[in-house]
Amino acid sequence: MSGAERLSASEAVARLEAGTLSAEQLVHDCLDRIAARSAVKAWVWLDRELALAQARARDRDGRPGLLKGVPVGVKDVIDTYDMPTQHGSPIYAGNRPFADAACVALTRIAGGVVLGKTVTTEFANRHPRETVHPHNPAHTPGGSSSGSAAAVADFQVPVAFGTQTGGSTIRPAAFCGVIGYKPSFGEMSRVGIKMQCHNLDTLGIICRSLDDLTLLRAVLLRQPRQAIDRTANAPRIGFCRTPAWDQASAETQALLERTAARLAAAGATVAEVAPAPPDILDQHRRIFEFEAARNYAYEYEAHGEKLSAALRDGLLKPGRALPLAAYIAAIEAAEAFRARLDEVFDECDVLLAPSAVGEAPEGLASTGDARFNAIWTLAWTPCLTLPAGTGGKGLPLGIQLVGARLRDEALLDAAAWVEAHLG
Amino acid sequence: MSGAERLSASEAVARLEAGTLSAEQLVHDCLDRIAARSAVKAWVWLDRELALAQARARDRDGRPGLLKGVPVGVKDVIDTYDMPTQHGSPIYAGNRPFADAACVALTRIAGGVVLGKTVTTEFANRHPRETVHPHNPAHTPGGSSSGSAAAVADFQVPVAFGTQTGGSTIRPAAFCGVIGYKPSFGEMSRVGIKMQCHNLDTLGIICRSLDDLTLLRAVLLRQPRQAIDRTANAPRIGFCRTPAWDQASAETQALLERTAARLAAAGATVAEVAPAPPDILDQHRRIFEFEAARNYAYEYEAHGEKLSAALRDGLLKPGRALPLAAYIAAIEAAEAFRARLDEVFDECDVLLAPSAVGEAPEGLASTGDARFNAIWTLAWTPCLTLPAGTGGKGLPLGIQLVGARLRDEALLDAAAWVEAHLG
Repeated sequence: MSGAERLSASEAVARLEAGTLSAEQLVHDCLDRIAARSAVKAWVWLDRELALAQARARDRDGRPGLLKGVPVGVKDVIDTYDMPTQHGSPIYAGNRPFADAACVALTRIAGGVVLGKTVTTEFANRHPRETVHPHNPAHTPGGSSSGSAAAVADFQVPVAFGTQTGGSTIRPAAFCGVIGYKPSFGEMSRVGIKMQCHNLDTLGIICRSLDDLTLLRAVLLRQPRQAIDRTANAPRIGFCRTPAWDQASAETQALLERTAARLAAAGATVAEVAPAPPDILDQHRRIFEFEAARNYAYEYEAHGEKLSAALRDGLLKPGRALPLAAYIAAIEAAEAFRARLDEVFDECDVLLAPSAVGEAPEGLASTGDARFNAIWTLAWTPCLTLPAGTGGKGLPLGIQLVGARLRDEALLDAAAWVEAHLG
Repeated sequence: MSGAERLSASEAVARLEAGTLSAEQLVHDCLDRIAARSAVKAWVWLDRELALAQARARDRDGRPGLLKGVPVGVKDVIDTYDMPTQHGSPIYAGNRPFADAACVALTRIAGGVVLGKTVTTEFANRHPRETVHPHNPAHTPGGSSSGSAAAVADFQVPVAFGTQTGGSTIRPAAFCGVIGYKPSFGEMSRVGIKMQCHNLDTLGIICRSLDDLTLLRAVLLRQPRQAIDRTANAPRIGFCRTPAWDQASAETQALLERTAARLAAAGATVAEVAPAPPDILDQHRRIFEFEAARNYAYEYEAHGEKLSAALRDGLLKPGRALPLAAYIAAIEAAEAFRARLDEVFDECDVLLAPSAVGEAPEGLASTGDARFNAIWTLAWTPCLTLPAGTGGKGLPLGIQLVGARLRDEALLDAAAWVEAHLG
């Protein structure tokens, strides 16, 4: 290894462009790291030769596009035409999609290398698989984007795609101590991503540098790259404990209080805000159940015995029984919440909120609790988690920042200010 | 033929349940009609034996579910595990999906028979294919759900699925003289339907009886069937000419004026409403271009030479060049329009609007103009077209009714009142 596996995507792009690094060397270093750290079990499918062949082709082509040969990990609910896509389910064992998902095609167009497929829980839902926490194998890495978060945190790949329907990007990123970003709902294409809930599913990005988010946004939206504005004034911060605050661990509560105080001391305006009604998580749950029960109609009927009991009996059965009127009421409650948030963002630039209950739980049986994430998935707002120290067990903690819907660039600018003043 | 091919789905269900008709006979009659009328070219894939085998299985199983063996046509942008799904494009020639789309799986669960795949324009966009108008082969049947509309109008199948991103369900149904229905956006699963625009795409239903819509809603939403209320009071009707009124043919304008007067005379309250800003179709166009350009990233890059020039150069190229800010502005304008419509529906039960510019145009080069449909696709409101006589060339004309979002049952009740009083 030359150490290139430690570079962020943006750092790698700079060296690839300058010619001081080849795509082949970078991919080689990532593959070596993966081999050395196979105990993390972050990858469900990886073909060393296919990855290297892509990298050599990028080098031959003069390292084109915005990515210039940077490797990307792809969660295994996202279609790839040249690699299996198995959705973390035996139903799709060996499934070979006809086409790339749009996010994968856009990555290749921009000169990216699809390194391999990262482990997902069953259908990006709750039933866990084999990935362990890269800092402590006795703990979950979180989920459902388990492999993407673990691989990025473990320097196996600089950036990886996740998805989020409840907390599937932000939570594992926070647990693993890296950056997780869920864009505004609807902005990025979901073509070729296994659909769980059409009102909630969002592509996520996991990486180790905020600058990589501007890079990936440019790639995925086919827009010119817009650098983070690091000269911006201190943001107006809304400290949002959310209705789930009492379920946060004491150290998460203390972390958030301390962060709010520190950012205020650094010059930010900090005010408490409470836009969410107490039953907001029930609304998320109703939409999740109703939509998933219909979206998985084929799997439930044709292959029900291959579904986990957690998915089949815990989610799809109650969803099948849910009346349409309850679903519509939940949709309308969500819309009222979004309208209320629009007002909150007239007064704030960004919200500060917990990323998770606490550190990654012990054991692999559960990927953790999504209550501090589902609220923002339902809100359709962009959000991201930043690493913010460690907890009592030495595992990472994160803080979550939430921006106004469809104002993702402003969220990234505010996040850079917060990152610079976290201490 | 025993004549069963003339039955609506609801009529067929009653006879299947009573035992006076078998699923095999019904499917047999439909297949004979298709064979006799092959010049309409409504089907891109049909396996007589596979259809009959499904029907016999339904008969053997006691004609289960809400559909009891009723055959359904499936637009060829909708996945079927046992039939090719080719999206009207040579790129997907011979493509065999792994799984059924959710709407197909739900149809099978409810005892339906998947009769075959109906012709779609290229990717449910504008580039036409071979289907002709069932009443006059020199005319287009409309599109993009060309085969579904033609097959239902021609008594080849009682009900068929379409999709709508601009006007792809309502327009061909109106041209062919049958009922077309686009449900509220987001209510019905889109899993396994080729995604064109995630903010616009909606599953559509084409049939010959309003009662069939309650049947299919129950099947696709997995809800108890809710019969149309035919005892309801006369509705409050908003007559909405839309900003495109001047482009409607004189006979369409006269039809709408005459209908408004007739319904008022029959007891409805009729008032003119004009909720749409003049540039509303530009907003639809921007969202369409931006999303399609990213959603078809794989097809554009890997198989661009197999795309029609209309799609590649007319839609995807301008979409790739569209700035994100213009897209976001269009999304926000659409949301303001939806909020304005919510207010309009405080005063109205249903809007009356044109279904299309006029009769189906001559020739197959164009499937017609979507300007009277795109506005309601963007609005996320449920809408349907009812047959309303014929035009100067003897081809059908329709009138469009639009309901409040997520109040589809109320739209169906109002539509039944209107149908009863059209004269």
